[in-house]
Amino acid sequence: MSHECRVPVRQVHLKAGMTVGELAEQMGQAGAYNGGALYRAISIYEKMLRDPDVTKFFGLAGAMVPAGMGGIVSDLIEAGHIDVLVSTGANLTHDIIEAIGCRHYHGDAGCSDIELRHEEINRIYDVYLPNEAFIRFEEFMQGTYAGLPEGETVSISELLTHIGSRLSSGILATAAKKSVPVFCPAIQDSMIGLQYWLFSQTGHVTVDAFKDMPMLLDRCFTAKKAGAMIIGGGVPKNFILQSMLMTENGFSYAVQLTGDRPDLGGLSGATLDEARSWGKITEEASAVTVYGDATVLLPFMMAAVLERLEQ
Amino acid sequence: MSHECRVPVRQVHLKAGMTVGELAEQMGQAGAYNGGALYRAISIYEKMLRDPDVTKFFGLAGAMVPAGMGGIVSDLIEAGHIDVLVSTGANLTHDIIEAIGCRHYHGDAGCSDIELRHEEINRIYDVYLPNEAFIRFEEFMQGTYAGLPEGETVSISELLTHIGSRLSSGILATAAKKSVPVFCPAIQDSMIGLQYWLFSQTGHVTVDAFKDMPMLLDRCFTAKKAGAMIIGGGVPKNFILQSMLMTENGFSYAVQLTGDRPDLGGLSGATLDEARSWGKITEEASAVTVYGDATVLLPFMMAAVLERLEQ
Amino acid sequence: MSHECRVPVRQVHLKAGMTVGELAEQMGQAGAYNGGALYRAISIYEKMLRDPDVTKFFGLAGAMVPAGMGGIVSDLIEAGHIDVLVSTGANLTHDIIEAIGCRHYHGDAGCSDIELRHEEINRIYDVYLPNEAFIRFEEFMQGTYAGLPEGETVSISELLTHIGSRLSSGILATAAKKSVPVFCPAIQDSMIGLQYWLFSQTGHVTVDAFKDMPMLLDRCFTAKKAGAMIIGGGVPKNFILQSMLMTENGFSYAVQLTGDRPDLGGLSGATLDEARSWGKITEEASAVTVYGDATVLLPFMMAAVLERLEQ
Amino acid sequence: MSHECRVPVRQVHLKAGMTVGELAEQMGQAGAYNGGALYRAISIYEKMLRDPDVTKFFGLAGAMVPAGMGGIVSDLIEAGHIDVLVSTGANLTHDIIEAIGCRHYHGDAGCSDIELRHEEINRIYDVYLPNEAFIRFEEFMQGTYAGLPEGETVSISELLTHIGSRLSSGILATAAKKSVPVFCPAIQDSMIGLQYWLFSQTGHVTVDAFKDMPMLLDRCFTAKKAGAMIIGGGVPKNFILQSMLMTENGFSYAVQLTGDRPDLGGLSGATLDEARSWGKITEEASAVTVYGDATVLLPFMMAAVLERLEQ
Repeated sequence: MSHECRVPVRQVHLKAGMTVGELAEQMGQAGAYNGGALYRAISIYEKMLRDPDVTKFFGLAGAMVPAGMGGIVSDLIEAGHIDVLVSTGANLTHDIIEAIGCRHYHGDAGCSDIELRHEEINRIYDVYLPNEAFIRFEEFMQGTYAGLPEGETVSISELLTHIGSRLSSGILATAAKKSVPVFCPAIQDSMIGLQYWLFSQTGHVTVDAFKDMPMLLDRCFTAKKAGAMIIGGGVPKNFILQSMLMTENGFSYAVQLTGDRPDLGGLSGATLDEARSWGKITEEASAVTVYGDATVLLPFMMAAVLERLEQ
Repeated sequence: MSHECRVPVRQVHLKAGMTVGELAEQMGQAGAYNGGALYRAISIYEKMLRDPDVTKFFGLAGAMVPAGMGGIVSDLIEAGHIDVLVSTGANLTHDIIEAIGCRHYHGDAGCSDIELRHEEINRIYDVYLPNEAFIRFEEFMQGTYAGLPEGETVSISELLTHIGSRLSSGILATAAKKSVPVFCPAIQDSMIGLQYWLFSQTGHVTVDAFKDMPMLLDRCFTAKKAGAMIIGGGVPKNFILQSMLMTENGFSYAVQLTGDRPDLGGLSGATLDEARSWGKITEEASAVTVYGDATVLLPFMMAAVLERLEQ
Repeated sequence: MSHECRVPVRQVHLKAGMTVGELAEQMGQAGAYNGGALYRAISIYEKMLRDPDVTKFFGLAGAMVPAGMGGIVSDLIEAGHIDVLVSTGANLTHDIIEAIGCRHYHGDAGCSDIELRHEEINRIYDVYLPNEAFIRFEEFMQGTYAGLPEGETVSISELLTHIGSRLSSGILATAAKKSVPVFCPAIQDSMIGLQYWLFSQTGHVTVDAFKDMPMLLDRCFTAKKAGAMIIGGGVPKNFILQSMLMTENGFSYAVQLTGDRPDLGGLSGATLDEARSWGKITEEASAVTVYGDATVLLPFMMAAVLERLEQ
Repeated sequence: MSHECRVPVRQVHLKAGMTVGELAEQMGQAGAYNGGALYRAISIYEKMLRDPDVTKFFGLAGAMVPAGMGGIVSDLIEAGHIDVLVSTGANLTHDIIEAIGCRHYHGDAGCSDIELRHEEINRIYDVYLPNEAFIRFEEFMQGTYAGLPEGETVSISELLTHIGSRLSSGILATAAKKSVPVFCPAIQDSMIGLQYWLFSQTGHVTVDAFKDMPMLLDRCFTAKKAGAMIIGGGVPKNFILQSMLMTENGFSYAVQLTGDRPDLGGLSGATLDEARSWGKITEEASAVTVYGDATVLLPFMMAAVLERLEQ
């Protein structure tokens, strides 16, 4: 029989006070659907973080910082679990907003957006962000951009390191401190980009769209192995996965948490198996996609992985 | 300002060995998207289970037993946390299969279904169930049906109690032991139903489709308050929510975990707010929908609720 | 090469005034994702309707009648394109409501459900239904039930034929007129069921939950071939697919339009390939699932199929 | 009564040979769920295209060109219906591939990706693209990049115009011919970008990430009104919507076709109402989101709009 019926599904039994890792074990023994996939994601990510030969990529898409997920990412950088970060501009914008002391707030997804507009509150699903945060953001960004080397050419990651080095907490600050490069190919597509446009009306610094590529590709060529943890899809997912295409190798580990779905054809919801056909991940790669909301999946996965790493 | 920015989103920070309840607190302080909704679901369900005046309904749809979620349900019944269970026929079929000693197995969603057919393995996404389970199921069911009172009329819940009283573990067994009624309006729509058709070619027992309604409605009329925990949508969701329609009251607590979505118009994905317009749940009801896969959400929610109930 | 690259994707070009069938041809030549699947659904359903040996099942789940899709179904019955209809109780409830002259209304999904409650309007996503419809529904149903044969036992389809024969338009009326049986396993789970409970406090008619099974199974055993058009999932999908399980055969044609997804494990979103492992559909069956909202997919598919049938 | 029940849902009735516009009318009179939303999208887009004061933005995300949707976009540019195009790099890569004579092929989403890898076929859900296309792509791109002005600084849209002017069909070719600017903020995140990295090892041209911003913002400041048609989400959606933030105005028309969903918090699935809180679209804007697969929704919507424009 080629399809073995060997490992039985075990019914889940819970107990009060169990750790996240213990709960994950229960879900792994049940082993089905996205609960089972989440368990496999935990196992793959643990293995990837323990493997000393792996260059560890992390992709961050979706409005994760406004939802409080930025803390997990900066802690991962601090702990040395991220070697290369690829992010959307929006997550970095909201990271700066928190780092300069502004806050996002618990809100209501069912409210009147026209009323919110009158009250100068911006909505991100059920998170509110007062407009005044952008006033302070503008001040900070213009001051920061003013410190760029007039007349010179910088890469996007250099621009982000410049910003991070002037902050004391959050993703950009920690990445700057730990010398972890942050790539953000679509930097223009964010408030960071709009502020840069404002600055560029008087300042004269060139941000070279491709200047980061040699450094990124060098890392890919020199990596013994590569691993990717991908939150959401979008530019970060594709930019990470395509980066190994130029080398002879692909990713050996890959985990994706996404709320998208495969049948629409877009890369964000594509299975990681599809990536094998392209050679983006290797034939033997340990890879799994967990479908769902990263505000549930990411904290769960990371708490379980941290518990395992301490054992 | 009518939309207050008062409770800030707190960035999540994890630590190794934290309990599920501690993780839930972190997600509650972040408070956004489905992670925030899951925290609210935990709080509402805790309050509902602590409230001595509440008649506690539980709806079970989706292929939950093959995925190992049946253990959580039978434990809830055992602990007295379910007063009325409404289930699909499929979940009860798979519950019987496990209770008579057959097993579901970890499988692969990407395999060839034609090969599986040749190997006599039935697939439920990434769960395998060998055909031989249905041979043993048939034996058990025919023996059980033979014990029904010839010539009489029974309700569906009586039929299910009859089955459960002949089993020693699982949902139906525990419900029978604890005298918790199990409603399954579409009992015909399951292997239990197909087996009944076989039995009825020689046996003469009438299963009255409506005989359960008076008992159910009596419970609704006499309930001081009502609360509903709904896994998935389908018949169980609607049957529970409509049950209070005939009374002056509605549900005071309602939690739904669903993978469906509202914009398609179907009841399975409908928001619980929509149920307020019908009066199915009260205007003041504490209610929340968490969107996602119940194989992740249900164990997480229940482990956190159990931890709180012990405090 | 085992995976041939033979049929190229053709870029879609549109022109003003094209028929739905012409548009479908364009989508078929593109051939990708759900647009391609929709084209295959059109081709399979056309073939199924043209095949004189096929017993044609139709499954109706989701709130389709409130969204105006009931007209398509009654027209299909009228045209002889449905031999067996399996529906949720809710669709039949709303069909009766329209047939007795009440209307559903264009509404707003983003309104206040508490205000709607005060205004006695029930909401189904962005459709409104005034409460008064249920007053007229109650009158009609109680009068109709009063005409049932006191003291006797009826099947659910007989009950529905009894109702349909007292109406002059809509699904139930057309089915009664054309002698198409309507199965509704979970009839209790609907306003039709709640009204029956009211009636049963004085009336004495037994509705036998299983009395329809022999007729349904007879049709399955005598069918030369079987075909299934399935709108949504739920009880109708499973009840149709399981019906052939007792025979040596399975469905030869199957089309499903669903807004659900496979990875959650539930039957509603399960692929039709999964059904091959069970033998519900044959190994060689022409089968396709189109993912999306049936209020878009169903009218599009049917208009294209009708156009082909006239050619 | 503040929530009026005024426009009744009309049951859909179809007839053979109806035009797409006639079908759309039926769906509009039904008016519910995404079928109703699609009708509103048709009406809004028609109005937007007829309004002489509107600067017309078009956002293109998702793997649309491999699915044959590129033909619709190039026809829209040809017809003058797009003033500003914002695209992902992937769509432009596949547009170039088709323009240089390579083809995408109808494939199978359920095949073995490892076998495909061995056969040098890349998979995009159920579309196949042979590797050899990328060999010809490389030749074309390196030749094209060699024609860039050595030592100078260009913007991304200038780079894309340079490419388009060397092609004779497709999106980039038509845009170049019609002087429609194509913005692609994340150009590095595509094969176009990887080829540029190759070129840059010998060539010396600087691509300034921000050089497009003044031209884009000028268009926003001078637009009497702005309208947006957005396919999918991602960078194109955000980049278009944020572009008006710096002006006093917002978009007056906005239509989005997306397979994403709001509750995950990401911008791709966010409602257009959410964009009102930010002022990205105006309070009075005509705006609608249709949820579903663009390979169904886009051809349907456009065929209906073209039919209306001819009337």
